[in-house]
Amino acid sequence: MRSIVEIIAAKRDGLTLTDDEIRFFIGEYAADRMPDYQMSSMAMAIYFKGLNATETGVWTDAMLRSGEVLDLASLGPARVDKHSTGGVGDKVSLPLAPAAAACGLIVPMVSGRGLGHTGGTIDKLESIPGYNPDVEVDTFRTILQEVGCAIIGQTAQIAPADKKLYALRDVTATVNSLPLITSSIMSKKLAEGIEGLVLDVKVGTGAFMKTIEDARELAQSMVSIGEAMGKRVIAFLTRMEEPLGQMVGNACEVEESMAVLRGGGPSDIRELVGCLGGAMVEIGLGISFEQGRQRILDSLDDGTAMKRWEQMIEHLGGDLGGMSKPKGETILKAPQSGYVQAIDGMEIGLAGVELGAGRKKQGDQIDPLVGLRIEALRGTHVTRGDALATLFHGERGEPDKTVLERLSSAFTIGESAPEQVPVILERVG
Amino acid sequence: MRSIVEIIAAKRDGLTLTDDEIRFFIGEYAADRMPDYQMSSMAMAIYFKGLNATETGVWTDAMLRSGEVLDLASLGPARVDKHSTGGVGDKVSLPLAPAAAACGLIVPMVSGRGLGHTGGTIDKLESIPGYNPDVEVDTFRTILQEVGCAIIGQTAQIAPADKKLYALRDVTATVNSLPLITSSIMSKKLAEGIEGLVLDVKVGTGAFMKTIEDARELAQSMVSIGEAMGKRVIAFLTRMEEPLGQMVGNACEVEESMAVLRGGGPSDIRELVGCLGGAMVEIGLGISFEQGRQRILDSLDDGTAMKRWEQMIEHLGGDLGGMSKPKGETILKAPQSGYVQAIDGMEIGLAGVELGAGRKKQGDQIDPLVGLRIEALRGTHVTRGDALATLFHGERGEPDKTVLERLSSAFTIGESAPEQVPVILERVG
Repeated sequence: MRSIVEIIAAKRDGLTLTDDEIRFFIGEYAADRMPDYQMSSMAMAIYFKGLNATETGVWTDAMLRSGEVLDLASLGPARVDKHSTGGVGDKVSLPLAPAAAACGLIVPMVSGRGLGHTGGTIDKLESIPGYNPDVEVDTFRTILQEVGCAIIGQTAQIAPADKKLYALRDVTATVNSLPLITSSIMSKKLAEGIEGLVLDVKVGTGAFMKTIEDARELAQSMVSIGEAMGKRVIAFLTRMEEPLGQMVGNACEVEESMAVLRGGGPSDIRELVGCLGGAMVEIGLGISFEQGRQRILDSLDDGTAMKRWEQMIEHLGGDLGGMSKPKGETILKAPQSGYVQAIDGMEIGLAGVELGAGRKKQGDQIDPLVGLRIEALRGTHVTRGDALATLFHGERGEPDKTVLERLSSAFTIGESAPEQVPVILERVG
Repeated sequence: MRSIVEIIAAKRDGLTLTDDEIRFFIGEYAADRMPDYQMSSMAMAIYFKGLNATETGVWTDAMLRSGEVLDLASLGPARVDKHSTGGVGDKVSLPLAPAAAACGLIVPMVSGRGLGHTGGTIDKLESIPGYNPDVEVDTFRTILQEVGCAIIGQTAQIAPADKKLYALRDVTATVNSLPLITSSIMSKKLAEGIEGLVLDVKVGTGAFMKTIEDARELAQSMVSIGEAMGKRVIAFLTRMEEPLGQMVGNACEVEESMAVLRGGGPSDIRELVGCLGGAMVEIGLGISFEQGRQRILDSLDDGTAMKRWEQMIEHLGGDLGGMSKPKGETILKAPQSGYVQAIDGMEIGLAGVELGAGRKKQGDQIDPLVGLRIEALRGTHVTRGDALATLFHGERGEPDKTVLERLSSAFTIGESAPEQVPVILERVG
């Protein structure tokens, strides 16, 4: 077998690595026997030369096996999770997990924190006083058994090689590699001990994947790897131009999620929950997508999803009654009259980070109570001076002019009403 | 200006880096403010995307300025050095530096140790008892003033960024990048405070550059960078298939070098010394190449080069009279009769490493007294049982069978005599 340096050279030269070589390489890295500088040159070689489907599968499996793989078989076969590649205002997981649980699924959802322009599910949940996402596996299993869903943070036991590699890729310009993205997502998700997975691959200016072709390629890659590992995987390509819903922030996104759990809330969020949840139910219960979708929407309307939500939060220590309201409001006014033709999700996300709702780098502190509400959604007609958005600036005082200008520039206002566009673009798998 | 990660990403995407970005990047690395894993992903990005001539020049200059640049101007303008990209049995520096000094040049030669299949000039010189290559700059200057030449080891003061980067490239499969090779060589050589440089770019199975096209590209790149930095640079592409001369090892190569300094020795070594030295004299004294070449050969024949050699060795603490003879001889016999049509320099070099004359990895101990002498040079007719080579196995006892087989397989014996081939293939610059 090749040595570490020879394995890097082989990939650099576009050769195919053997199963043993990949497992050896990941194993040495996971065990801290290989320095970061060898993994980072390998990651850059993979950026240029890729991994074929077989290599990606083995790479994923090796990362998955670098840690603990949860055995949740005793909870029955309907163990299905959802993963999103990340967008702005994307709070779908919060109503979705309890809705799917209300339909009879087991949803062992391990989520991350936000970085850059996108938020993180765990950050949002932590705006609920007392919510503790860092639980032991036994507690996780108990909550899943009693409630059907649990959203917890990544543990050191789940795919530690991925945790290490992801942090390294972030600082070595090797994030944007299809096989590395695929294996990172799939290794973490398949370590949850699930039988099926629904993927929400975001496309657009507010997403990591800017074009539908790139998003489709990623979706197909993840579906193939999942299926090669014996799982049922369905992916949707969904629109990520403007933010989802009206709220961007942490506490305020929990508030909006709860509106969806009461059968209301923004229509795009409700539509995504129905679609992604429908596919989860299709996989978990073996009924049609349309039937699954209807059951999910019913669970939102009849209060059964809300009940699961409340139970889940309570089991994880959260006190919904103790939530604070966002403080300090600044109104962003329309500089001219016309139709809101576009809202740049990337700019809104970055403005949110400036406000303190997100992180510029890992480890930054966030303020759960800051954020913003979009008052004039895409397609709305505004008159000059009308509110485009309300900023919740918290204890920090009024945001400075550059943040307001950044936010203002995110809104394109013009004379004609924009065409209606679908949220769900395409299904893969 | 871009951040470190953005600079890596820009190169990864094939963009051109600015002067400031390159100087910042190398500066952070040299000052240990940037981790190795960022430099290694950058090196791999450069492997794929290259550096243009301007970028390579700035990269070289930044590495050069990471340390001390010797100021030898007081020694006069005829400060010229030679650098070889490394071959097997290449002991040319040993007779060349004193010969050029005898012709009136100042030759401040900073050399390295061997790694892999090629030997290192400093290793060879260290087989002379007492020879100390690690001297202070003041001593170096004094010897140059009194003798005209000095061959010393790399100091921590000369291009420390290159030293660090070279060690990193070695373990991250990023050695073989034209701009990185160019800048590594040129930053070290130009830090010597020279006015001109002659490059010996080896081509063939025993060299790093396997094809004349690759060698020509490297030569042109180094000549351009040197000239852009105001130096006169001449490169020769020279043949590296079979080893140079008959001797491969350390003490035995010193012995062979001294034969050349006595006006004798193998014709290929003498030819290379004449050619490379001729170009050095052409640069340093401003006379024609042919006149320069004749002066170099005269200095070998009239004993003036030998005198400089003896002075240099003495100044650096070496005792030529105290040198030991290689011990323990094993004869490798021709397995069949015929002409020696080819000798694989790479295999001979690797067999030398097995014998203990070279290093598999940095820091390995070498035995100065082991080595080998090729008895049947390319073109010789041998009868089955004739000696092909004599191995000096030193205190270790007879080499094991695999070394003998490796050595034997390096010799191609056939019915027809091979064509005569030139040592000097092409001049660049």
